[in-house]
Amino acid sequence: MSDTNSLDTLIQSLKRLPGVGIKSAQRMAFHLLQHDRAGAQVLARALHEASTLTHHCERCNTFTESNVCATCLDPRRDQSTLCVVETPADQSALERTGAYRGLYFVLMGKLSPLDGIGPNDLGLKTLFERACDGVVKEVILATNFTAEGEATAHVIGEALRERGVKPTRLARGVPAGSELEYVDLGTIAHALVDRR
Amino acid sequence: MSDTNSLDTLIQSLKRLPGVGIKSAQRMAFHLLQHDRAGAQVLARALHEASTLTHHCERCNTFTESNVCATCLDPRRDQSTLCVVETPADQSALERTGAYRGLYFVLMGKLSPLDGIGPNDLGLKTLFERACDGVVKEVILATNFTAEGEATAHVIGEALRERGVKPTRLARGVPAGSELEYVDLGTIAHALVDRR
Repeated sequence: MSDTNSLDTLIQSLKRLPGVGIKSAQRMAFHLLQHDRAGAQVLARALHEASTLTHHCERCNTFTESNVCATCLDPRRDQSTLCVVETPADQSALERTGAYRGLYFVLMGKLSPLDGIGPNDLGLKTLFERACDGVVKEVILATNFTAEGEATAHVIGEALRERGVKPTRLARGVPAGSELEYVDLGTIAHALVDRR
Repeated sequence: MSDTNSLDTLIQSLKRLPGVGIKSAQRMAFHLLQHDRAGAQVLARALHEASTLTHHCERCNTFTESNVCATCLDPRRDQSTLCVVETPADQSALERTGAYRGLYFVLMGKLSPLDGIGPNDLGLKTLFERACDGVVKEVILATNFTAEGEATAHVIGEALRERGVKPTRLARGVPAGSELEYVDLGTIAHALVDRR
């Protein structure tokens, strides 16, 4: 290739990003150096700032630069409902619906024994303290409907029931706009069980 | 999502990378902040260093931190052969074969009129000067065998012939290890024409 050690270092560093292999890392590095050095500088600064300034919200565990995030501080939000999601992206999806006005708890992951992620890694202690603080009346489990997300919801749900809090789960069913013929059978079975 | 402006800035900056959309950028940002802050710092430093230290080799146009790259300075290489490639990655592929001991000229792109990349953007002036310097006896055109790569080879080849240099082109033919039945017809036709 070339003798540019800083280029090799850049390619190796880009490879640490999730979903980026050696070919993509090379393409990204060449693109930045050839066509977008300003972008490289902007990204360098953004990485540095985000990784030094960002920490976890004391109340909901999402990323924030303050001690408590803006959502948790918003007085217009319903303090009695707590929605448990896996990631800030999931929180963002719920926010965009405009259908939820309560607060959140962001797990920043999901139970995944194979990856060594157990209950202690998800800040569940903080979640249980909040759920039992007397203000929260309902905990909505909105983890993903994958095997790991379901397992996470199950574990949290059981622990909440032990503490006398009855959790709810997002409804499973047929997605809006879909034709039954093309919906998978597991989804139709759930929609039948959960019919209203 | 959250009120973290540095997080939003990071996601927008990651989106500038080629092949990265909003979802990938979010995933990368969350991964770095949640699991690999050290990686974020390493990447920030690598981006800064590569984009400030790296420039183009005076002789072959590849990325280097010196004025002339190590390949061009290597006295064991055959000074009379010049291989024209599109990118440092292509050069790297040729190097890994171990079958070429000459020098390179790296275009850092290809002719692409729709993207506004013409002959002046590829450093062709430097290439033609080197090809006519009396030392170089053979110019091998090793641009990609895509429509744009072929057009680039054609334009450079014509210009070299006008200057009295006869270029060669990498052989087209059936890839090693392949069965004729599964090779596309264009490739077989080329292999027939170029048979030896």
